[in-house]
Amino acid sequence: MNPIIQSLFDRKSCRIFKDKQISQEERKLILEACMQAPSAGNQQMYTIIDVQDKKLQETLSKTCDNQSFINQAKMVLIFCADFQKWYDLFVYENCSPRKPGVGDLLLATTDATIAAQNAVVAAESLGIGSCYIGDILEQHDLHRELLNLSEYVVPVCMLVLGYPAEDHFKRQKPKRCKLEDIVCVDQYHRKDKKELKNMFEHKAGNKTLNEWATAFCKRKYNSDFSKEMTNSVQKYIDQFKSEAD
Amino acid sequence: MNPIIQSLFDRKSCRIFKDKQISQEERKLILEACMQAPSAGNQQMYTIIDVQDKKLQETLSKTCDNQSFINQAKMVLIFCADFQKWYDLFVYENCSPRKPGVGDLLLATTDATIAAQNAVVAAESLGIGSCYIGDILEQHDLHRELLNLSEYVVPVCMLVLGYPAEDHFKRQKPKRCKLEDIVCVDQYHRKDKKELKNMFEHKAGNKTLNEWATAFCKRKYNSDFSKEMTNSVQKYIDQFKSEAD
Repeated sequence: MNPIIQSLFDRKSCRIFKDKQISQEERKLILEACMQAPSAGNQQMYTIIDVQDKKLQETLSKTCDNQSFINQAKMVLIFCADFQKWYDLFVYENCSPRKPGVGDLLLATTDATIAAQNAVVAAESLGIGSCYIGDILEQHDLHRELLNLSEYVVPVCMLVLGYPAEDHFKRQKPKRCKLEDIVCVDQYHRKDKKELKNMFEHKAGNKTLNEWATAFCKRKYNSDFSKEMTNSVQKYIDQFKSEAD
Repeated sequence: MNPIIQSLFDRKSCRIFKDKQISQEERKLILEACMQAPSAGNQQMYTIIDVQDKKLQETLSKTCDNQSFINQAKMVLIFCADFQKWYDLFVYENCSPRKPGVGDLLLATTDATIAAQNAVVAAESLGIGSCYIGDILEQHDLHRELLNLSEYVVPVCMLVLGYPAEDHFKRQKPKRCKLEDIVCVDQYHRKDKKELKNMFEHKAGNKTLNEWATAFCKRKYNSDFSKEMTNSVQKYIDQFKSEAD
């Protein structure tokens, strides 16, 4: 295994940070690595909000499902799918653009996420840990105001970064599913009850699969933050609805 | 710059492939690198369809906006946002799950895309080129049938891979925008006409910005494939609508 692939294997989410600054040079390298990521038609349909205000960071640690470690991070980046800049350019240049639609939203979402993962890989190579915060998709009204988001700008993921504290290295990386459970050949295969049991059983630890699944569904899926995420994303999607009208 | 960040900088999309197979060992490494990517709650809310059937590959080269180089690739991976497996597990285990919603769709979309970018980075480290095909988001009805997609499964991006032909190395990587055009501090800044002109002017080459923007808008944005993408994505989104009913 070469050192690059080894680094992808070694990387695990970091939620315990040392009190050590990320240098300006490192910050720039991480951001430049994002910019070098592949992007549909080289359109870079994203904007990165670099959260430098400590008060804003503290607020985000609350609005993103109350995760206090967010406030301990030394770098916080919000990756926004951004079609606003393209739409505005086309309008200013009298190109008669159609209104952005949900196709543009999803394409810009992948663009932004690809750039974010380059930040993760670059940071890891510098010994800097990272954690994705999906909860930035929640709280539409609050986050729109807080981050001054325009109509065609959606915060699709957030990264918090910092040098890992010692305890980070003691934590085992959570086990992944088996390759054959995730990869299908040529067509999607919908798994039956037995196949799903085989696939997820390793997650249950010393519980039964049913006990584990029941608790996980309650905590992660039937929970308030999870329902709120759908309400919030629906509002973002509605902003892109004008095209279909 | 360390070798990992250098590799992120060097990587550019590859659309001209050598007639050289990707070994089984390399294929497995690339797929395992996807699996090691960060994933919300370690849920791996994606399924990777490994296209091995040559006829299917040829069909995809047509359905994805007629790009014949897709058919020359030696490895084709479709990254699907997949909430079906989790929903089915929760149903089988009597967890009374709510129906999946658009929040789950967007979270699973980022999950799938993060995994895809790990494939890109891993492949590049092996000397294997790659190109994202966003057009897999188009042709909802056709792709759903072709790939046997279930209700809560959405193909969010496709990767084609292969060893680059000589000409690939001669092509210059397209220039990115300046860092300060993509990064905002603390809040989104909507650019005015002059700022957008400064940001995009380098793309125009020997044309005026207006000439370039007009042609680009027509070809990339007011074009049929782009409108089709929004129609297609709307249909996928509608599949996740049950929750709001």
